[in-house]
Amino acid sequence: MRELGIGLIGTGFMGRAHALAFRNVSAAFELPFTLRLAALADADPVRAQACATAWGFEQVHSDWQQLIDNPKVNLIAITTPNHLHYPMAMAALAAGKPVYCEKPLAVSLEQASAMHLAAKAAGVVTRVGYNYQHNPIIGLARDLIRNGELGEIISFQGEFSEDFMANPASPWSWRCEAGHAGGALADLGSHLLAMARYLLGDVEAVCADTQTVHRQRPATAGSPEQRSIAVDDQAHALLRFASGARGTFSSSWLKHGYKNHLSFEISGTQGTLAFDQERLNELRLCRVGEGGFQRLLAGPNLPGYAAFSPAPGHQLGYNELKTLEVHELIMALAGQGQNGTDFEQAFEVERLAAAIRLAAREQRWVNVREV
Amino acid sequence: MRELGIGLIGTGFMGRAHALAFRNVSAAFELPFTLRLAALADADPVRAQACATAWGFEQVHSDWQQLIDNPKVNLIAITTPNHLHYPMAMAALAAGKPVYCEKPLAVSLEQASAMHLAAKAAGVVTRVGYNYQHNPIIGLARDLIRNGELGEIISFQGEFSEDFMANPASPWSWRCEAGHAGGALADLGSHLLAMARYLLGDVEAVCADTQTVHRQRPATAGSPEQRSIAVDDQAHALLRFASGARGTFSSSWLKHGYKNHLSFEISGTQGTLAFDQERLNELRLCRVGEGGFQRLLAGPNLPGYAAFSPAPGHQLGYNELKTLEVHELIMALAGQGQNGTDFEQAFEVERLAAAIRLAAREQRWVNVREV
Amino acid sequence: MRELGIGLIGTGFMGRAHALAFRNVSAAFELPFTLRLAALADADPVRAQACATAWGFEQVHSDWQQLIDNPKVNLIAITTPNHLHYPMAMAALAAGKPVYCEKPLAVSLEQASAMHLAAKAAGVVTRVGYNYQHNPIIGLARDLIRNGELGEIISFQGEFSEDFMANPASPWSWRCEAGHAGGALADLGSHLLAMARYLLGDVEAVCADTQTVHRQRPATAGSPEQRSIAVDDQAHALLRFASGARGTFSSSWLKHGYKNHLSFEISGTQGTLAFDQERLNELRLCRVGEGGFQRLLAGPNLPGYAAFSPAPGHQLGYNELKTLEVHELIMALAGQGQNGTDFEQAFEVERLAAAIRLAAREQRWVNVREV
Amino acid sequence: MRELGIGLIGTGFMGRAHALAFRNVSAAFELPFTLRLAALADADPVRAQACATAWGFEQVHSDWQQLIDNPKVNLIAITTPNHLHYPMAMAALAAGKPVYCEKPLAVSLEQASAMHLAAKAAGVVTRVGYNYQHNPIIGLARDLIRNGELGEIISFQGEFSEDFMANPASPWSWRCEAGHAGGALADLGSHLLAMARYLLGDVEAVCADTQTVHRQRPATAGSPEQRSIAVDDQAHALLRFASGARGTFSSSWLKHGYKNHLSFEISGTQGTLAFDQERLNELRLCRVGEGGFQRLLAGPNLPGYAAFSPAPGHQLGYNELKTLEVHELIMALAGQGQNGTDFEQAFEVERLAAAIRLAAREQRWVNVREV
Repeated sequence: MRELGIGLIGTGFMGRAHALAFRNVSAAFELPFTLRLAALADADPVRAQACATAWGFEQVHSDWQQLIDNPKVNLIAITTPNHLHYPMAMAALAAGKPVYCEKPLAVSLEQASAMHLAAKAAGVVTRVGYNYQHNPIIGLARDLIRNGELGEIISFQGEFSEDFMANPASPWSWRCEAGHAGGALADLGSHLLAMARYLLGDVEAVCADTQTVHRQRPATAGSPEQRSIAVDDQAHALLRFASGARGTFSSSWLKHGYKNHLSFEISGTQGTLAFDQERLNELRLCRVGEGGFQRLLAGPNLPGYAAFSPAPGHQLGYNELKTLEVHELIMALAGQGQNGTDFEQAFEVERLAAAIRLAAREQRWVNVREV
Repeated sequence: MRELGIGLIGTGFMGRAHALAFRNVSAAFELPFTLRLAALADADPVRAQACATAWGFEQVHSDWQQLIDNPKVNLIAITTPNHLHYPMAMAALAAGKPVYCEKPLAVSLEQASAMHLAAKAAGVVTRVGYNYQHNPIIGLARDLIRNGELGEIISFQGEFSEDFMANPASPWSWRCEAGHAGGALADLGSHLLAMARYLLGDVEAVCADTQTVHRQRPATAGSPEQRSIAVDDQAHALLRFASGARGTFSSSWLKHGYKNHLSFEISGTQGTLAFDQERLNELRLCRVGEGGFQRLLAGPNLPGYAAFSPAPGHQLGYNELKTLEVHELIMALAGQGQNGTDFEQAFEVERLAAAIRLAAREQRWVNVREV
Repeated sequence: MRELGIGLIGTGFMGRAHALAFRNVSAAFELPFTLRLAALADADPVRAQACATAWGFEQVHSDWQQLIDNPKVNLIAITTPNHLHYPMAMAALAAGKPVYCEKPLAVSLEQASAMHLAAKAAGVVTRVGYNYQHNPIIGLARDLIRNGELGEIISFQGEFSEDFMANPASPWSWRCEAGHAGGALADLGSHLLAMARYLLGDVEAVCADTQTVHRQRPATAGSPEQRSIAVDDQAHALLRFASGARGTFSSSWLKHGYKNHLSFEISGTQGTLAFDQERLNELRLCRVGEGGFQRLLAGPNLPGYAAFSPAPGHQLGYNELKTLEVHELIMALAGQGQNGTDFEQAFEVERLAAAIRLAAREQRWVNVREV
Repeated sequence: MRELGIGLIGTGFMGRAHALAFRNVSAAFELPFTLRLAALADADPVRAQACATAWGFEQVHSDWQQLIDNPKVNLIAITTPNHLHYPMAMAALAAGKPVYCEKPLAVSLEQASAMHLAAKAAGVVTRVGYNYQHNPIIGLARDLIRNGELGEIISFQGEFSEDFMANPASPWSWRCEAGHAGGALADLGSHLLAMARYLLGDVEAVCADTQTVHRQRPATAGSPEQRSIAVDDQAHALLRFASGARGTFSSSWLKHGYKNHLSFEISGTQGTLAFDQERLNELRLCRVGEGGFQRLLAGPNLPGYAAFSPAPGHQLGYNELKTLEVHELIMALAGQGQNGTDFEQAFEVERLAAAIRLAAREQRWVNVREV
């Protein structure tokens, strides 16, 4: 069994989530590789060393290029701010190393396109962190759809809403800059678009409406200085899938009451299913002939779940979705990947989001291939 | 106190619902009139008499014009098939009598427009049976919105789905004919459009997508003969309200799992509320600073509820919404109406539905004033 | 078809509920009798007349004995305060007339026993107003149990909680007097005991605990004068059914958050069902082999529902349960009764409540036949 | 900073859960110790080595006494079958080492008592794996109760039901033996009793009823040989807390529809809260003056949650509760423990369960101090 040396760039929220996932995955699964937490990079060498100690990485770099060049590193995991995804991933691909990049793939469609083409040219495994897809109960939803248990799929209603920007006094951050992939559509909505594509395939055309409700926010918390905001606070769209299904899409970061409401309902000629990420271990399902919705709880009968618990109803958490994502990535490195979102698929998510923005700007239906 | 003679046309589901409501309203409320169930009309005189006996009407007519002309009749209630609303309402208005017509107002926008203008000219009270609006908990929602407790309203997500046509073997009926105001948008969606307007005011522009999934249905149950279907099985739209709020709209009669899922979520800068007609006595509410949604159950603190029960949580049923609608109508006849949907408002609902159809047909944004 | 003259005693909340039900029942159902609202009695003749006019009664009495003696009255409906149930029902039985009495049957077990024996001797139809049993979805629950679809029933968890006495400043009322059948156990709990018996049959033995939390309450709202309270604010019990099923029982009128939480869960070797009166049109059901609970919504496939609506999910209200109760009573008068709670069954409910009180007082298991 | 050498005995479900938790805890928290996965013991040396490699333990033992004696091991974690808890924990205490033992503490009250006294004599930190208590939202519930936000606590309704033995063809296992702490009460119910004590303190007296529904089960899956079963399939009890609160308790492993339904409702004079382990990130809360229950989702404002995610609504899983338990244990070893269940508290849980068994056997109220 070969060793796989992990090189992780970034020590923020997602950096730690990756570290936890890499630590867990070998305890949870039998792997085709021995994992080695080879190197951790952060511009701040003191922070890099503290995190490396806590998380079990062998070596630190304050220059990320050195991490990429480190011969002990076979896989590059990127968890830095969005605008750095492009240079880091391109460098990793140039070095011929597989890349595991946090979402969004990039801060512009041009970057995303270049990254996807570079990945294709490099011929290495790439993955983007749309971790919600790796939920075992989402796998069940996908299987039900693919196996035709809902019949022909005819409609999709999806919404991803949170409330973390609902307070107009919440200050400006990078999330308020289009150049950093900010706005409710890019920040939250892209997760839902990725999910819609993951479950139902390509979207052909969109019509949309976006809106900036709070056009100014304090420069910093409590500051009298105001900064202008141009990114969307909420976005609504109509979706036409290539399969013929139709639907609606909404995304907002102003919606009081929601913390992680990535939710959807998919309906076919033989049944309907519904999901809400705020109850990530549950699927609601009604098949033809049944009287009403049934609540299904995730259990060890679903692929992936049993790695964490032999008992149903014990519930996975957000971080375990990340571990499942890392597991799929590692299996892909051994040639046994399944359904992970690679740079090509992630580019298609960005393209779809760009089509929605164009449709909103020009107030017309846009064919996704236009952008 | 004057007497009010009720003349009811039609003895089907809605005929009986009206009869029950007129019977209940004087037991539930103190009224400015003494109600008299003066006359009942049905083309079938035997059925007319049987129903009159069961429901307590004094007299029957097999010719509806005679009912309208009957001097004991002061109010014309119309519950016949949709295509008869126009001639009956026009005749009643010509006779200078108030009209209470089931929804939809008419089977074409031209008819609806003529009816609204005739009502205006006649100067009598008119009402259309959008009974869901008379739910006390909808009154609470409206008050919360009007009083600014949700701040500035910024979004609306609405869906009205049922499953009663989900089976492709469900046969053709008048509901499958555009000329009878058939299709999911007209039959179900118009309730939701009326509700959206009731709560949030005028819709300015729409973009939409409609679809006929089952393009053929048996002519009658089990028949090998197939009839072509052209009306929509499902409709999706984007809505732009005059107030600036934006949102999504869906309607389907193919959605497994739903029986009466007229549902919406309205969100403002200070809070969010959510409602589902399948749990008509409940409102979910989250205001700024609260940790999550609260479930409110209707109780006697809400106008209307106390007429039926002095105790909270005892729950009103569908028929009591109809009684509340009749109560509002009677109060309007005494000059004390509140928020009932008159022919003008009902015309606006039809106009909005027509704009959605046009937007779907031409695949573009449509300003509602265009139609 | 014969006429049935209704004589109603009492014009409070339950008086009006009865009046509404008698008015509705002939519009909703085909009946074996023509109903006549023959007479209404209230000690206050002015109120009696006003209500008779509003509700459609032909005649009024200020002396209830005269109503009983009125030859046009064939059925005596009693909705007066609890301590009057005994003399009124005994007088009606003495006159050989059927009796429809609000719950509880009486204010002491001795009275209840005498009433049940008098009814047996008179040989007339009697009914007691445990209206929650007439809910079509409760009928479904009963059928599922009776037909063995849940296998052998092994457990019952029941709770009836409200919050209407939760505020210690809520003043004394007759509900605080044991001699008026006050206390949470008698006032609320008896509904749940009746339901448990209705669904699962006789309870053989009980053990219990009751508690008065607020031992004083203001004599009237806001008054500085305090009255001592001896009735239970909450009661808990273990139940052993004759069938072998075991379970728990709770009742409280101090429980914040609940308005009408008559709820239970019944589990058998083949499945589990759950119900909550706060969502009276729903049943949750999980049968062996199903992945989780299914939510069933009442619809016209259930006996009784179709009388009110041809469409599922339209929901019945509290008052319609009363109409269904009156319908069962009228059918019983025509020899076609089904499952209504007569004086014998109502006596058994009182006996069970008395056994619970005894078990709590003596802190021991009590066989229900002991009391 | 000192090193803490972990010695783990057992490699089953709970063995792996402990290993995952010890791996995660240093990535999730800043700790007062450097953790070292010093040694893993399993009677099967091949399995021991395979697990040690996968989980990162440095050394293996096939003899657990050697692990206890290993000088690199400072903490003994016991995850073996229940009947081995006693000898292993006693040996660890004899060696003066802290013990972290899975629940239940022992297979008899005598053992449990001896263990608790030995722990007291040894003066070392002990913990028992009642991991559900370490849920941040349970911490919120406890704080609400302790801070008086629900007023005086007056009632508790608790139920822990699953369905894993519902099928009578599910074969005999050690869980069916009283001598291995089998039965629904010991296996599931003890978690709920521990929780009740954790939140509301000592239980003073109990009355109870237990039942074996399926008195025979196949010796092994599909075998025609039957074994007699004497342990309880379900248990019901009344509880009287020392504080004066009263309540009900149920436990079953036969209840269709439930997978991990450790649920309770606690009500006080100022509010009610409700929890269900099947939705472990949620608390329902209604305080005096609020209209209904509010759903609260766990977030980083709650101690412990932020170690796993900076964002609310992202949800913890079962395994993270274990990590939180291990964190509390490690803090306790540094003299900063908070509310963990030590051997004394675990003995009290066993005593309470024994009192319930005695009350059921003798069909009488039992004071917990009697046993």
